[in-house]
Amino acid sequence: MTTVPPTFNPATTSRAADVIARCQALARFSEDPLSLRRTFLSAPMRDCHQAIAEWLEPLGMAPNIDAVGNLRAVYPAASSGAPRLLIGSHLDTVPNAGAFDGPLGILIAVALIEQLDGQRLPFAVEIVAFSEEEGVRFGTPFIGSCVLVGNCDEEFFHRRDANGNSIRQAIQNFGLDPAQLPAAQLRDDVLGYLEFHIEQGPVLESLDLPLAAVEAIVGQSRIAFTFTGQANHAGTTPMNARRDALAAAAQWIVAVESECSRTAGLVATVGSIQVHPGAANVIPGEVRLSLDLRHKSDQVRAQATQRFTALAQQIGARRALSVNFATLLNHSAVAMDAFLTSQIESAIRAAGCPAHRMPSGAGHDAMILASRVPAAMIFLRSPGGISHDPAESVLLEDVASAIDCGSHLLRQLASSSDFLQRTIAPRG
Amino acid sequence: MTTVPPTFNPATTSRAADVIARCQALARFSEDPLSLRRTFLSAPMRDCHQAIAEWLEPLGMAPNIDAVGNLRAVYPAASSGAPRLLIGSHLDTVPNAGAFDGPLGILIAVALIEQLDGQRLPFAVEIVAFSEEEGVRFGTPFIGSCVLVGNCDEEFFHRRDANGNSIRQAIQNFGLDPAQLPAAQLRDDVLGYLEFHIEQGPVLESLDLPLAAVEAIVGQSRIAFTFTGQANHAGTTPMNARRDALAAAAQWIVAVESECSRTAGLVATVGSIQVHPGAANVIPGEVRLSLDLRHKSDQVRAQATQRFTALAQQIGARRALSVNFATLLNHSAVAMDAFLTSQIESAIRAAGCPAHRMPSGAGHDAMILASRVPAAMIFLRSPGGISHDPAESVLLEDVASAIDCGSHLLRQLASSSDFLQRTIAPRG
Repeated sequence: MTTVPPTFNPATTSRAADVIARCQALARFSEDPLSLRRTFLSAPMRDCHQAIAEWLEPLGMAPNIDAVGNLRAVYPAASSGAPRLLIGSHLDTVPNAGAFDGPLGILIAVALIEQLDGQRLPFAVEIVAFSEEEGVRFGTPFIGSCVLVGNCDEEFFHRRDANGNSIRQAIQNFGLDPAQLPAAQLRDDVLGYLEFHIEQGPVLESLDLPLAAVEAIVGQSRIAFTFTGQANHAGTTPMNARRDALAAAAQWIVAVESECSRTAGLVATVGSIQVHPGAANVIPGEVRLSLDLRHKSDQVRAQATQRFTALAQQIGARRALSVNFATLLNHSAVAMDAFLTSQIESAIRAAGCPAHRMPSGAGHDAMILASRVPAAMIFLRSPGGISHDPAESVLLEDVASAIDCGSHLLRQLASSSDFLQRTIAPRG
Repeated sequence: MTTVPPTFNPATTSRAADVIARCQALARFSEDPLSLRRTFLSAPMRDCHQAIAEWLEPLGMAPNIDAVGNLRAVYPAASSGAPRLLIGSHLDTVPNAGAFDGPLGILIAVALIEQLDGQRLPFAVEIVAFSEEEGVRFGTPFIGSCVLVGNCDEEFFHRRDANGNSIRQAIQNFGLDPAQLPAAQLRDDVLGYLEFHIEQGPVLESLDLPLAAVEAIVGQSRIAFTFTGQANHAGTTPMNARRDALAAAAQWIVAVESECSRTAGLVATVGSIQVHPGAANVIPGEVRLSLDLRHKSDQVRAQATQRFTALAQQIGARRALSVNFATLLNHSAVAMDAFLTSQIESAIRAAGCPAHRMPSGAGHDAMILASRVPAAMIFLRSPGGISHDPAESVLLEDVASAIDCGSHLLRQLASSSDFLQRTIAPRG
């Protein structure tokens, strides 16, 4: 299929340039002097809030910071009492981050309001800049969106960071009031949630596509394995008398990689490994490693989990090792809202791009919002597939396409009577 | 072959029990409160010296501590001016050590002098308890024996421990005088060096043998490998777009193990591995690991080194990774003295045991002494092959066999005119 590349009017291109410049401006607000790290309720979050407030001011939008530190700003509807559409993403970052993972989605939302040029829609648009998505400070991701959907109990707020501060204390230390947390929850007037985000992978680039509609956020298992053999002298123990935990683990890693390549869309990663005792002249007696397993089908993921744990035990048995494992995480796949996703496809086409559907291999705030409101995502191509790195980037023309797509989408939704009736049900 | 198990007179068995009890007594002198760690010139070394001096006192032997902390005690020959035979092993230990690795060889030497019951030989016997063999404190093994053979330059004494103290400072802090180091060197009156040591491996146990003559100490290479791929997101990077450094390293570890099993006597160990960035949800971008490679033939070891480095580069090339390596250690195999080794075989047979020859997979002081004097070793079976662990042990009857073998050996050497003429040549 040959597609005519989209052409933009100079205003859209200039707005896309503004979006990129604003992402880069926010990237200067960091906890680290030479690289970008901006964790939950850290000091540079205030600088971000102030900068965004300045960009919203010409639009007549005065943001407020809710009790969990999310920046929220409402662009009113044509009539009072109308429901609202949320558009947003997150402001926090990983250590040594790039400028676009998170902030891009917030600044595209701002650009879409600018693009309206004062025109009112039959629904309000609330821009949400989430205070936490990456899970860096508390080892707990999605703090901002979990509060929005009311998905957090008392234990949640008592989790502690490396300095021993709880989430509740972090909230107080930032000058916010934990008593107001219930007021931060969504009301029943929400039509849905939209999130623009960089893909953070190589798929769109390999297909030469600027945008995609996200059909689902893949399910994820995280499993900790321990291979236990017998530490022994590297010089005096013949090969056939060894119970080498690392040799066993290596055999399993190779087998997992090979099996995984035979199942479309399945990804498995051993990202961390520790060997005990870990001396060059001692046969490893114990290996601990992590397995991260993802697929858009929960069934495929469950089958793979079963296959890979059985495989570890077979390899262990053959080598007289014991193998134990513990499931640390078992997130189901989350489907994006079918109506919004098909509207996104139409909008992508209206912006002159081929409409591609793909799963997201990474977790996003949209996955948390989906538990309570119709949620959908638009991916922008990640050059080189690079993310979580200062080299993370976006193409100017892709951002222009995203703004164009978003404008079409708002117009489509504004004229859809089906959509306007889809507010969320009260929570049971 | 069926062998009649050796029978001991009650005195030998009682002496063997003393040797074991003395090893266990020395094991109480430790830097750590709940386990045995006794490194070079640490405080508990003084306790060991004192205990050994008390055991030597009834033999009329007054030990002295040389400038590098070796305890040395001479049992005089029948006539003055006669040459000397050294018998010894090391007093230092690894962390969490057993009681027998090192001290056993010293206390068997003491038992052999006791066994002489005052009888003089045509050569003196010098018991040497080396201050350092394991390399724990300075990352440099064999400090005691290197000083004995004069194999250490100025740089050697400037190496530093974790607290920043040099070997020279450690010597001074223990109250010894570095100016006396040259006087610690062997003179030209040495007939040879004998060392009794636990095997630290499972071979003798698997053959149901108490003792072996060591024919050679295997050569050893230590090579550091770095596999460099590309760190990336575990969820968003398809399997076929990965440059996973750990998957590559695992494939290589499996291949090394498999190739190694096809070459008799070759042992290869990957004992340490570090993954960067090392997060469960990030594809490893870099893996650093160690390869320890040993064989009694230097040629076989060199060929294996070449094969394994080439294999790493082939696997790297296939996966678009770069592979680098650096040789950290390249010790040639050291043959034990042929005459002494055949005398040991005779003595083992005279003690009622089958004479087995085997290489030592571990380094020992005998390997350092061999650069200057005829050196030989006798291995004692290690139950379970266990060493460098509190569970390290010896069998009472094996220690009795070792004492019996040692007594026969001293008698054989005393009556060998060939042996008595084999003093070392002045060093060129």
